[in-house]
Amino acid sequence: MNAPIPSGAVREPLRGGGPGAGQHTVRRHNLALVLREVAGPEPVSRAAVAARTGLTRGTVSSLVEELIAAGLVTELAAARGTTGRPASPLRLDPTGPAGLGVEIGVDAVGACVVDLTGAVRAQRVVHSHHRDDVPATGLATAEALAAEVVAEAGLAIAGAAVALPGVVGADGVLVRAPNLPRWVDVAVGDELGNRLGLAVQAGNEADLAALAELWSGGPPNAVHVSGGIGVGAGIVLGGRLFRGAGGRAGEIGHVVVAPDGPPCSCGGRGCLETAAGLEALLRASGTPDLESLVTASPPDVLAAAGRALGVALAGAVNLLDVPAVVLGGIYPRCGAVLLDAVRAELAARVVSRPAVDVRFSALGPDAALRGAATAVVHELLADPAIHTAAARA
Amino acid sequence: MNAPIPSGAVREPLRGGGPGAGQHTVRRHNLALVLREVAGPEPVSRAAVAARTGLTRGTVSSLVEELIAAGLVTELAAARGTTGRPASPLRLDPTGPAGLGVEIGVDAVGACVVDLTGAVRAQRVVHSHHRDDVPATGLATAEALAAEVVAEAGLAIAGAAVALPGVVGADGVLVRAPNLPRWVDVAVGDELGNRLGLAVQAGNEADLAALAELWSGGPPNAVHVSGGIGVGAGIVLGGRLFRGAGGRAGEIGHVVVAPDGPPCSCGGRGCLETAAGLEALLRASGTPDLESLVTASPPDVLAAAGRALGVALAGAVNLLDVPAVVLGGIYPRCGAVLLDAVRAELAARVVSRPAVDVRFSALGPDAALRGAATAVVHELLADPAIHTAAARA
Repeated sequence: MNAPIPSGAVREPLRGGGPGAGQHTVRRHNLALVLREVAGPEPVSRAAVAARTGLTRGTVSSLVEELIAAGLVTELAAARGTTGRPASPLRLDPTGPAGLGVEIGVDAVGACVVDLTGAVRAQRVVHSHHRDDVPATGLATAEALAAEVVAEAGLAIAGAAVALPGVVGADGVLVRAPNLPRWVDVAVGDELGNRLGLAVQAGNEADLAALAELWSGGPPNAVHVSGGIGVGAGIVLGGRLFRGAGGRAGEIGHVVVAPDGPPCSCGGRGCLETAAGLEALLRASGTPDLESLVTASPPDVLAAAGRALGVALAGAVNLLDVPAVVLGGIYPRCGAVLLDAVRAELAARVVSRPAVDVRFSALGPDAALRGAATAVVHELLADPAIHTAAARA
Repeated sequence: MNAPIPSGAVREPLRGGGPGAGQHTVRRHNLALVLREVAGPEPVSRAAVAARTGLTRGTVSSLVEELIAAGLVTELAAARGTTGRPASPLRLDPTGPAGLGVEIGVDAVGACVVDLTGAVRAQRVVHSHHRDDVPATGLATAEALAAEVVAEAGLAIAGAAVALPGVVGADGVLVRAPNLPRWVDVAVGDELGNRLGLAVQAGNEADLAALAELWSGGPPNAVHVSGGIGVGAGIVLGGRLFRGAGGRAGEIGHVVVAPDGPPCSCGGRGCLETAAGLEALLRASGTPDLESLVTASPPDVLAAAGRALGVALAGAVNLLDVPAVVLGGIYPRCGAVLLDAVRAELAARVVSRPAVDVRFSALGPDAALRGAATAVVHELLADPAIHTAAARA
């Protein structure tokens, strides 16, 4: 009694014998299953993988050989002190194929390489006021930085992803970017891909920052706000990125906090970005840059920004019913005055739940960059067959 | 290239031989599959069901007999003019077990019966200013109305659901209801269930209104706003109710439209409800009730309410990236001035997509009541085995 009302979903029939049941697909699935066990925090033996997956020892050995040959898995020295045949623990190969992340921000361009274990192996970020330049300038900077980090890391690159400060279409085109207007309609993924000779996916920077937070142990249900010149959010629900109906969810920077407030770059008025974006904070505090703002730390400016963030986030929590809010980007540098103001607004305004966990991101301002590179690695780990097939060819 | 960034989900292994693969479960699944085909807009023959489901004719016949015996499916007279053995088309049995819906609103109590085909067979709504009464008063009214509609419909009742104007916990307890404070912590589902001798599920009225809209052909991705004394939203994504992380998503009435605005029943200030709830409209227009408001139709009051709705909805669309907004409850009676103001705000403020479809609900103010009754029917259609087993026992 009193179970929740059903969701009204249209059910799909389970039909046997369709595509996807073949031998090739089963091996592909099991390859991912084995790699997932190896990707855990501790090295594991083949026997442990077999026990955890329910696959036979023979199948596990065959799949592990394929993963080792592709450079995804490596064998540690055999454990000492065991009786009988020594077990050689397996782990992800930190010298295996890596992910390249690129970020094209409003005031910075960066690149980094993350290895299979999730470790950052090389990173460069340059502050670059390229907002009024043609995209080719920023693309050339990104290309040069990518070449540097790839050379420094010395690893094979499995693929790349680029984080962008705006609405990204499914085809990798930057559809809307109020703070980078000259980049709108540019197929940034393709452009970078051609320069780098790699497949480059494109994603929203707030989404990628939220994934980086999730992958580094952040809460599985949260609104993750990335503060900078633009303000965006990545929404994580049930340990997955929530994309909304059209894939462009999370534009919290344009949630209204004062309907008749200052004009916003988007064409609206009184958006959160006009109250809590970096340029608004600099203007309100009369400081020239983030470092000066952090040094001056004007409590009234930071409290006002926190209240605006709290108003917008209370709306988001009331709409999405999430238990946690993570403040990233520039906000961790703004300190307790901002954090306390956000908490006070949420405490006063959230009706959907009794309390909300509000915290600063543990990652630095490069969360989106790290998220982009790590997304490549996660995709590889989720379906290693593409890579092992290429390694065999 | 440029596929969307992966969502970061943890994958689940496909393990064979676990629970859920037994003969009983297969029959239960196939029973639902057959009923789903019969539930389509046109009557279908057993042969057509077999062809569409991939089940054998013999299996389909056996399952259909079980559904007929349980009163869920009925056979029409054999089609004329066919050669060979005549086909007897099947359809849902409109005299079969029905759903009972109850709504306890802030200013009304209602009950209705919806048959298996989704048709309303009996309905009563009484306007009742029971806000300050003990819950027993409203429960007694609901009990009496339910008895009346059940008697009028003359159908067996499969179950019941009650729509409530607040945050409903998974256990059917009304957790938060700023407009019905005396009902907070009341297990409304259980209380009604004991009075009616039926299992009664409890749900949020805006969620149930959104489902009613969806089930009557509304858009599969939409924010559905229910306006009344309270203002709530049901969010539909991919043809399913979106519940958020904690099951209480959609509290749009407490999204802020003016941070320093009037105090709200929730304890906050400047919530949408203080600008576009019924009591706010009556106060602003100096009219005593909805009928007088609709007759007077003061354009400044309705335009201001529409602007407030537009501000809150622009935020919701920017966060959720939905293509459609449906305005229900009292709003369809407020006319074009309100609708145009909502559209203008969305056009000016939405950044996540180029255009949003804004429309009035085609259902009346009783959408939540109808949704509650129809939810029971949908649950029965989704898993008829529970009912057929009871019919056999």
